[in-house]
Amino acid sequence: MRAAVITVSSSRAAGGERDESGERLSELARRIGAETVERDLVADQQGSIEQRLRHWADVERCELILTTGGTGFAPSDVTPEATRAVIEREAPGISHAMRDASREHTRHWMLARGLAGLRGSSLIINFPGSPASIAQAGDAIAEAIPHALALLGGDGDRSGHQ
Amino acid sequence: MRAAVITVSSSRAAGGERDESGERLSELARRIGAETVERDLVADQQGSIEQRLRHWADVERCELILTTGGTGFAPSDVTPEATRAVIEREAPGISHAMRDASREHTRHWMLARGLAGLRGSSLIINFPGSPASIAQAGDAIAEAIPHALALLGGDGDRSGHQ
Amino acid sequence: MRAAVITVSSSRAAGGERDESGERLSELARRIGAETVERDLVADQQGSIEQRLRHWADVERCELILTTGGTGFAPSDVTPEATRAVIEREAPGISHAMRDASREHTRHWMLARGLAGLRGSSLIINFPGSPASIAQAGDAIAEAIPHALALLGGDGDRSGHQ
Repeated sequence: MRAAVITVSSSRAAGGERDESGERLSELARRIGAETVERDLVADQQGSIEQRLRHWADVERCELILTTGGTGFAPSDVTPEATRAVIEREAPGISHAMRDASREHTRHWMLARGLAGLRGSSLIINFPGSPASIAQAGDAIAEAIPHALALLGGDGDRSGHQ
Repeated sequence: MRAAVITVSSSRAAGGERDESGERLSELARRIGAETVERDLVADQQGSIEQRLRHWADVERCELILTTGGTGFAPSDVTPEATRAVIEREAPGISHAMRDASREHTRHWMLARGLAGLRGSSLIINFPGSPASIAQAGDAIAEAIPHALALLGGDGDRSGHQ
Repeated sequence: MRAAVITVSSSRAAGGERDESGERLSELARRIGAETVERDLVADQQGSIEQRLRHWADVERCELILTTGGTGFAPSDVTPEATRAVIEREAPGISHAMRDASREHTRHWMLARGLAGLRGSSLIINFPGSPASIAQAGDAIAEAIPHALALLGGDGDRSGHQ
């Protein structure tokens, strides 16, 4: 299983800073059973983010595409909008679970605007930008994602359960 | 009050299998105070599902339209997309409540992609495909639905509460 | 910081009744640190509501726009639809938090259809119509909103946290 990790951050895209959030997402991908084929740094621009999401889904056919950053309230935070523009089917329960998971850690949990959804055979999930939030949100969904990916690939035990 | 129950499943639509999920939804409709005027079996195709939803809402004027199946991550799961295409007003709290209700029963609760919303005077609710999930989700919403339908029909006690 | 409060209610717009819900929203705005520059009464018509939302966001440049009413299941309840038409970025966690907050108070919590989202530098939040619900929902989000507004204004401590 192949994963792509996209760090959305104009300052990091300009170079220099260590991308700890991207590293955390790679670790999460590994834990879920996916190998990160590439880590991408992209500026906070909706068109650029959409382009990278399409690339990893349509050209590289990664089953799992994890983003970090750009999900807040700053004027430049447009990762959810880029994601909505490229997904074909939304998975609202995943972002619901991620918000609930950060609830005990911060009173700002409700400000996470991240989405999750499907484009072709790829599952795209928006994570917050902070490394700590990634760990919490990742713990909440790590068990369910392999099952989601098996269904998405068409080789899961369907049994009419959803 | 009239209800329609739609079972979305290509295998069941092809005949043979008993439709236990559809039976459970009919029981739920009765408990809510609605008579199921028809049970429908439809294949996992977005156009076909939309057509049935429009039929039960616009032609048969059922106040309650309950679907089961097609809300997961398989490539053929498109019930939420068909539902989104026909609803005029979304009711996100209903799917929120249903996801929360299945949380204590399965770690896969977050993979339910079902929606709920209004088309004209009809309330459409997507349930998961498994009979057990229907019971859990149904318990969570059964008390609130009669009030929703009374408001929708214009004869409820509004009192400015929403 | 400037706030606008919009009460959506055809009966109140026609005059007479005291607008207790609007008063509660003004108090909430003050608690959040915003001065209510105007309270508006508008009928339950999607076009009229959209027009008022655009006015307070684009012309008056209020950072915070709070609405009450029109979020339920009656045929005339179209505040969320008007809101969706004018927001550029959705903030689903805010309505998630508000629904969860009313959960312990009413079994009808799941019938609230209100949205929250951003238009330019304005945060728009739909509250239910009842004064009691406003207090509960307001308590749930009051702590996080100042941080959201600081980020939206571009002067918050971003630190990559979202």
